[in-house]
Amino acid sequence: MGTYQRLTAEHIECLTHIVGAGYVYATAEKRLPYDRDEGADDGFARLPDAVVLPGSATEIAAIMRWANRERIPVVPRGAGTGLEAGAVVNRYGGIVLSTERLNHMIEFDAERLYAVVEPAVRTAVLQAEAKKRGLLYAGDPCSGDSCFIGGNGATNAGGNRAVKYGTTRDQIYSIEVVTPQGDITTLGGRLKKVTTGYPLEKIVIGSEGTLGIITKLTVKLLPLPPYSAHILAVFPDAATALSVVTAFSGAGIEPTCLEFMDNDCVRIVEKFLGEKQPYSDVGNYMIMQVDSKQEILLDETCLEIDACCRELGAIDVFVADADRIWRARKNFSEASGSEGPVAMEDFVVPPDCLAALLTRLKQIAADTGLSFRGVSHAGDGNLHLDVLRKELDDALWRERLSAFETQACNVVYELGGKLSGEHGIGECRKTLMKAYTDPVELELMKALKKAWDPNLILNPGKIFDVE
Amino acid sequence: MGTYQRLTAEHIECLTHIVGAGYVYATAEKRLPYDRDEGADDGFARLPDAVVLPGSATEIAAIMRWANRERIPVVPRGAGTGLEAGAVVNRYGGIVLSTERLNHMIEFDAERLYAVVEPAVRTAVLQAEAKKRGLLYAGDPCSGDSCFIGGNGATNAGGNRAVKYGTTRDQIYSIEVVTPQGDITTLGGRLKKVTTGYPLEKIVIGSEGTLGIITKLTVKLLPLPPYSAHILAVFPDAATALSVVTAFSGAGIEPTCLEFMDNDCVRIVEKFLGEKQPYSDVGNYMIMQVDSKQEILLDETCLEIDACCRELGAIDVFVADADRIWRARKNFSEASGSEGPVAMEDFVVPPDCLAALLTRLKQIAADTGLSFRGVSHAGDGNLHLDVLRKELDDALWRERLSAFETQACNVVYELGGKLSGEHGIGECRKTLMKAYTDPVELELMKALKKAWDPNLILNPGKIFDVE
Repeated sequence: MGTYQRLTAEHIECLTHIVGAGYVYATAEKRLPYDRDEGADDGFARLPDAVVLPGSATEIAAIMRWANRERIPVVPRGAGTGLEAGAVVNRYGGIVLSTERLNHMIEFDAERLYAVVEPAVRTAVLQAEAKKRGLLYAGDPCSGDSCFIGGNGATNAGGNRAVKYGTTRDQIYSIEVVTPQGDITTLGGRLKKVTTGYPLEKIVIGSEGTLGIITKLTVKLLPLPPYSAHILAVFPDAATALSVVTAFSGAGIEPTCLEFMDNDCVRIVEKFLGEKQPYSDVGNYMIMQVDSKQEILLDETCLEIDACCRELGAIDVFVADADRIWRARKNFSEASGSEGPVAMEDFVVPPDCLAALLTRLKQIAADTGLSFRGVSHAGDGNLHLDVLRKELDDALWRERLSAFETQACNVVYELGGKLSGEHGIGECRKTLMKAYTDPVELELMKALKKAWDPNLILNPGKIFDVE
Repeated sequence: MGTYQRLTAEHIECLTHIVGAGYVYATAEKRLPYDRDEGADDGFARLPDAVVLPGSATEIAAIMRWANRERIPVVPRGAGTGLEAGAVVNRYGGIVLSTERLNHMIEFDAERLYAVVEPAVRTAVLQAEAKKRGLLYAGDPCSGDSCFIGGNGATNAGGNRAVKYGTTRDQIYSIEVVTPQGDITTLGGRLKKVTTGYPLEKIVIGSEGTLGIITKLTVKLLPLPPYSAHILAVFPDAATALSVVTAFSGAGIEPTCLEFMDNDCVRIVEKFLGEKQPYSDVGNYMIMQVDSKQEILLDETCLEIDACCRELGAIDVFVADADRIWRARKNFSEASGSEGPVAMEDFVVPPDCLAALLTRLKQIAADTGLSFRGVSHAGDGNLHLDVLRKELDDALWRERLSAFETQACNVVYELGGKLSGEHGIGECRKTLMKAYTDPVELELMKALKKAWDPNLILNPGKIFDVE
């Protein structure tokens, strides 16, 4: 890895010179909110040496050039809603660069169906602005109310609608980026297709702030489908519920959301919300949203879904109260956490392997003396587990969790899956990333990182360490 | 650029040792078919020093390691149906590596909706295999009958259906790749979403054989939509015809194909095929294909299209004879070429700028003493021009064409467009690529290339030269 300097009072002065007084946080009190992300009750919290809040791409570029000269690591950060400590300083130290002041909606073209936004615009704000005009911004991470669109781009955020619309990468036409060495460029274009050199935007997006700092995004908008239905299909067991995914693909049924909750989750949420959930005694849920431009098509699709689920063995299939069913789904994490500490996993496999994965993970959990609750963005094969710590002491918990994760990854990769469907690797998953990524592939990633960031200044040691 | 050796008899012997007797072509006669691609009556033809036909990824890896040791450029080649001399040896010399022996369909999973194919499977064969099973392989470059699926991946081929299904990049789950230094790895996965490090497959795809040699592809399949309609809307002028694109996006109408032919093209094709075309006296065509899972939806969409086109000012809108209308569209290139030599352009702009682009290009053509015929994958903003050479001598033709291309590119980039929508840059478009790409972006591309291919062995000097 790079050789770095510790931050001095002179450095603080330089930074102040770049961004102006009031925009460099040096006191412990001001730095404290930047020492962790939303996943970090896990030993990855760390106070940055300073926090800098630039007001423009030009200032960010100046900071990066300065950081390269001075050998100070720079950790870019959006809203800090990540879960893998990607936007938190690690053992290499350095400063946090918060994009929070770049929070303007620059352009909104309802006719040409795009918007140009700065990175600190909240995803929910963009969604609301679109909705007001009868349009849809299709990105929809679960943290939408608090996360930034720039962070969505940096992490390629997924969410409930990814099964139909893809992840954040698929919502972006182009990005303005400050490179690790402090140049500014625009990657991509407002184009439906293009083959003019390497599509670099596709790797900067999702690079977790290691290949560039996103300072502006041109995102796609869609006409808002006027008709929606929310359907709950209840199954007697998880495997049968999950078989819906393959059946739907084969039949060409394209739901906007296709979410799985196992019976444990249903019960936990029922208790947490104090709100009776249908069939909570035995039911495994498949929650679906279907959107359509035509009412007649919506009706047809709902009938198809009903028939398909019943044929697969559903206990019941019915049009659900949208607010209620999504409240249940969206409160899972909080409900689960309220029962005691958990570790969250984010495996992804081919959707047709989800049932097999779940079965084998249950066995591994039993073998390692652990248990978990599972919810899944089933439509795209992404399984979130809350592994329960219960009363285990630190040492035993770490030991068992590590054993579970290793064995779980063995199965995930055997099924053709990968470590992270949408949370990314950040600092937390580096060890597993190294263990489970083909060495040739990992070397190609490192070579790219080194080529663009020879001093390893931009978010060093995230995703992988460069030797 | 790199320092290269000329091929010797000893080198030929080494290559023969790797791939076996009969699979190294050293005579001029055997090498001749590999000296050009389908675009190359343009001064870019060049005889390779040898042609090698490996039978496996392992052999390709051995060739790349050998070539790095010996400093021999290696130009990977599929069916040679490219148009920009990307698969042809350039001034750096070296050998052509043809993938033609890797032509097996390895796996076809109709239930899980994917196929695993070697790179030299013809695209039309893959399409036909899918169709036989009621499935669709959505990639559909115009050269489908002759091109290879590996070449489609290497160039991110587009085609008529890209407006709905995206380009070849969007059809690929994962690729097995031989790296420029001769390692083998698999990039991507059969996953609906993933955020586990950099998605390197997305940049190898479309890199025109400069970042890796694709030796196996796992591609997506879809249920074949059972209902299709082919509609011809005839407009009195090009601008009105092209306004359809934005109107459709705004209305959420999603055709599978949305192709434009100006009146000149209609007349040329009518003459070439000897087959009367509707409204050929005045008509500018917008040819559409609409596919649907439900008959009722297809009918609704057709009615919507009819109303929309008429409101915009169509002379007529009617369900066309599919064979006949697509024969007209697909014979454009040959028809146009039969009238005399042409140079083909491949600009892409935001679809809502197509009309403005066409108007301005006509003016530029007039200013530079040239004329052109235009067809467009209008739905994705991709405009192909056949610029007519007529009786111009070599010097004047080059001078005028160069003046036209420069001014055309000025407009294309001003409108937010790029040089190539689907043909790529190859050897032919390097000068324009350099002139019109932001230097920071271009440096990032070069840095990536150098990092992965430090000896500049794999298809050197394509897309850009590395200083």
